[in-house]
Amino acid sequence: MTDLELTLIGIGTGNPEHLTLQAIRAMNAQDLILIPQKGAGKDDLAGVRRSICDEVLTNEAVQIVGFDLPVRDPAIEDYRARVDHWHDAIAEAWRGAMAQHPTARRVALLVWGDPSLYDSTLRIAARLEPAPRMTVIPGITSLQGLTASHAIPLNEIGAPFLVTTGRQLRDHGWPEGVDTLVIMLDGDCAFQTLDPAGVSIWWGAYVGMAEEIIRHGPLADVTEDIIATRAAARAAHGWIMDIYLLRRN
Amino acid sequence: MTDLELTLIGIGTGNPEHLTLQAIRAMNAQDLILIPQKGAGKDDLAGVRRSICDEVLTNEAVQIVGFDLPVRDPAIEDYRARVDHWHDAIAEAWRGAMAQHPTARRVALLVWGDPSLYDSTLRIAARLEPAPRMTVIPGITSLQGLTASHAIPLNEIGAPFLVTTGRQLRDHGWPEGVDTLVIMLDGDCAFQTLDPAGVSIWWGAYVGMAEEIIRHGPLADVTEDIIATRAAARAAHGWIMDIYLLRRN
Ligand SMILES: C[S@@+](CC[C@H](N)C(=O)[O-])C[C@H]1O[C@@H](n2cnc3c(N)ncnc32)[C@H](O)[C@@H]1O
Ligand SMILES: C[S@@+](CC[C@H](N)C(=O)[O-])C[C@H]1O[C@@H](n2cnc3c(N)ncnc32)[C@H](O)[C@@H]1O
Repeated sequence: MTDLELTLIGIGTGNPEHLTLQAIRAMNAQDLILIPQKGAGKDDLAGVRRSICDEVLTNEAVQIVGFDLPVRDPAIEDYRARVDHWHDAIAEAWRGAMAQHPTARRVALLVWGDPSLYDSTLRIAARLEPAPRMTVIPGITSLQGLTASHAIPLNEIGAPFLVTTGRQLRDHGWPEGVDTLVIMLDGDCAFQTLDPAGVSIWWGAYVGMAEEIIRHGPLADVTEDIIATRAAARAAHGWIMDIYLLRRN
Repeated sequence: MTDLELTLIGIGTGNPEHLTLQAIRAMNAQDLILIPQKGAGKDDLAGVRRSICDEVLTNEAVQIVGFDLPVRDPAIEDYRARVDHWHDAIAEAWRGAMAQHPTARRVALLVWGDPSLYDSTLRIAARLEPAPRMTVIPGITSLQGLTASHAIPLNEIGAPFLVTTGRQLRDHGWPEGVDTLVIMLDGDCAFQTLDPAGVSIWWGAYVGMAEEIIRHGPLADVTEDIIATRAAARAAHGWIMDIYLLRRN
């Protein structure tokens, strides 16, 4: 494995048509594609990855190998230590899957959305030794899926925007000096911790997928609807991914 | 034109392989695609759009119409007024181009990168009366092109990042509470106005295109090289588009 070429391929956020021509070409140029498998009832993302492979792979030499995605160890209390340990375990799972195909030199992972955005695959790849040759293929992000579904601009003219997490918003409130926020990785509807005066929200769940739900309006008016809609969708599907944009005037 | 369906199609940032399957399908579903033409020697973007059409259009019924992109009126001193006036003029140019094809109902514009990111097409579309039915197809952004070419994550684990412009960075300095910045629309290498201590830069010009140039390193070490490289590339090509990520530790 001294000359492993690892390609991280952004696949977009659930719509198989988010795939770029570059991603399709890269997928067909691999010896091996590694697909993470979560336990049943978690989400359908392994299924999405497999059906993307079915649809666009034309090179029969490409092999697809599933590996069991380790779970985070709840016994490790410190958040960063827990994540580090988990990333180590994932790198080990990759090694195990690759060891089944010792001649494979070009290996790819299909990364949800874009590999640069709140994704750990690059950090896990940095654990491999010797260091592989890395290639990243950009993909459509959930952020762009959100703005496309609402047909809204991300920024106001010439103005900045901040992308952050639900935890940051809850712990630190609305940051200084910026009027547009995009919130990802929010399991608890952190927008309800804000003073809603003058704030509008554009919210989306399962953006780009058949299950897509979107809502928007003044935060004061739609907060309850979004909380209820989110809870119902989560119960119905067994999982949810959501993202939202907040703008104040 | 009462039931105009306007589709803004993100085409990525210069690599024709950034096109998504969704974008290709949307292009082939149009009656008309409007292509802006700038004066000679500006940039090659009209050329990129036309060659994308050549490559992916399989439906011969799709018509392609060029329109002359108006220029900003330097006599209007106020920045916002100048931009507003310019957007009005572009909407007028669209109307003129559509008037040549009065039966066209499905009309598209091919938007550089993603239509939500520092792009005015949605705001220009809001000037059309009656309001068209809008659809937005997301595209690969220059921001993702940059992180892919450098094979770096955009954010640190669980941390926010701010996307802003060269003007904002120059006028307001490094914003509070955030350690990762992405700077777009910077004609003047605004990074040179920062204290470089502890700051690293990942810079890219013509990202995703054949002409791509990238540089990275501690800001103190690479500032001069980037300024010189940028000036030389701009002189050689007659135009440049660049973007960079700054991270402080
Ligand atoms: C681990 S991050 C990965 C983001 C991904 N790399 C991207 O480019 O969008 C997961 C978060 O992305 C957002 N997300 C991803 N896919 C989504 C979708 N289809 N709809 C809504 N939010 C989504 C949610 O905020 C979720 O908590
Ligand atoms: C008017 S904005 C449009 C951005 C576009 N909508 C996107 O999604 O990337 C133009 C700015 O985008 C950045 N940009 C666009 N294409 C680029 C490329 N191929 N390489 C580097 N920067 C690019 C530059 O910062 C440029 O000043």
